[in-house]
Amino acid sequence: MAKKSPLFSFLLLLPFLLTLTQATSKDQPCKHIVLYYHDILFNGTNVANATSAQVAGTNAPLGDFFFGKLIVFNDPITADHHLFSPPIAMAQGFYFYNMKTNYNAWFAFTLVFNSTEYKGTINIMGADLMAMETRDLSVVGGTGDFFMARGVVTLRTDTFQGSAYFRLQMDIKLYECY
Amino acid sequence: MAKKSPLFSFLLLLPFLLTLTQATSKDQPCKHIVLYYHDILFNGTNVANATSAQVAGTNAPLGDFFFGKLIVFNDPITADHHLFSPPIAMAQGFYFYNMKTNYNAWFAFTLVFNSTEYKGTINIMGADLMAMETRDLSVVGGTGDFFMARGVVTLRTDTFQGSAYFRLQMDIKLYECY
Amino acid sequence: MAKKSPLFSFLLLLPFLLTLTQATSKDQPCKHIVLYYHDILFNGTNVANATSAQVAGTNAPLGDFFFGKLIVFNDPITADHHLFSPPIAMAQGFYFYNMKTNYNAWFAFTLVFNSTEYKGTINIMGADLMAMETRDLSVVGGTGDFFMARGVVTLRTDTFQGSAYFRLQMDIKLYECY
Repeated sequence: MAKKSPLFSFLLLLPFLLTLTQATSKDQPCKHIVLYYHDILFNGTNVANATSAQVAGTNAPLGDFFFGKLIVFNDPITADHHLFSPPIAMAQGFYFYNMKTNYNAWFAFTLVFNSTEYKGTINIMGADLMAMETRDLSVVGGTGDFFMARGVVTLRTDTFQGSAYFRLQMDIKLYECY
Repeated sequence: MAKKSPLFSFLLLLPFLLTLTQATSKDQPCKHIVLYYHDILFNGTNVANATSAQVAGTNAPLGDFFFGKLIVFNDPITADHHLFSPPIAMAQGFYFYNMKTNYNAWFAFTLVFNSTEYKGTINIMGADLMAMETRDLSVVGGTGDFFMARGVVTLRTDTFQGSAYFRLQMDIKLYECY
Repeated sequence: MAKKSPLFSFLLLLPFLLTLTQATSKDQPCKHIVLYYHDILFNGTNVANATSAQVAGTNAPLGDFFFGKLIVFNDPITADHHLFSPPIAMAQGFYFYNMKTNYNAWFAFTLVFNSTEYKGTINIMGADLMAMETRDLSVVGGTGDFFMARGVVTLRTDTFQGSAYFRLQMDIKLYECY
């Protein structure tokens, strides 16, 4: 009886210990990457430089903030905020505006890495609440070096030049890594 | 030898115990929220009331059930089924119809909470099999109070008034909470 | 003191053991399904056979590879590569082309199973890097028999007949099952 008791105590503690290992992860991402996302919208003439194009929602029927305007992109991702730094990934996906009273968007895209440092993808979706200084999207999956990743991406507008060019800082924190 | 045996048995049991802790969660969500989603489609004149607008697929080329019609929305979410109850969240995203022989849709969106009760987002995607009384979509991520959430959302059509207005009950069950 | 030491050693080992159970899963999916995805694009006259239709991006403004062309689909999924085999699921979702210099796409869709073998859904999103022989997308969630699934889907182009018909092999590996 006395012999079994430490093991028995441990069994009682097990669920708590498991919870603990998860809870701590909130403060300590298993991976942290800061990137910059550059979007140059096609304006009818800049075919060579454009990295995105509007494909739907031209009429913008609701309000004055592009409600329904849908943009497909293949945007360069750099390690610093210089547009012409060598891209370390591409962001492939789309966003659309969805608010009547202000600029506000929704994104879904894949970060495609193919460098010596990383090979693989990170899949992201969520609301881009543009009126907020920072806003959080979800990392919903990953492949290759980011196999089965989950986490949070914090966006911050780094610069915004009308609809011609904008740059976002992406602070990627993964809390599930394999 | 005899001294080691209980620990050894426990080691053998460990994978089973771990499986068990996961399996039980299926019946017991760590969080359960029931909400109502209201969609008022823009009809060309109701700018003040409309919460969604068609942005693509106008031609509806395949069949008579709006195949390809794509709607962007910023819809109010209420705690009861009254359209004019104070919204406790907004649903930002899009859906499109995708069946030749019946009404059927596909959704991806973010529930944006910004109240005293909840701050944060829940990201959802999946098929809305409208012919079924209930249908399940996936919670694929979350942020803020819903940090890293995963789960299932069960949709039920609460009312449907042509394409002018529809209301869905959303039964959100999270099985991973932090 | 001597009595406690094996348990104490085990406690020290626990984090390592937990890591181990996760790490092994990378090589050993808890579920593995190989399927074939068939897409017959609407060409203006094949209403009876078409399973997908372009709904946006008609102008294809950037380059010669359909940049921005967005297709909604409800495509049959079969267990072998014959188009006319009985479908064991439907793939409901959309894809769009997003590259100026080559064919390249982005997908988000739901596999809807409703057979004696499986009932439920698998939700998938990611980049379809068409220039690669194989490319990995993420399983970001599931319902029913695939409750809370996560994993990776490897796509391989099985055949491609212009834009009239293409077939993908989908190698689905789930690493989280309940």
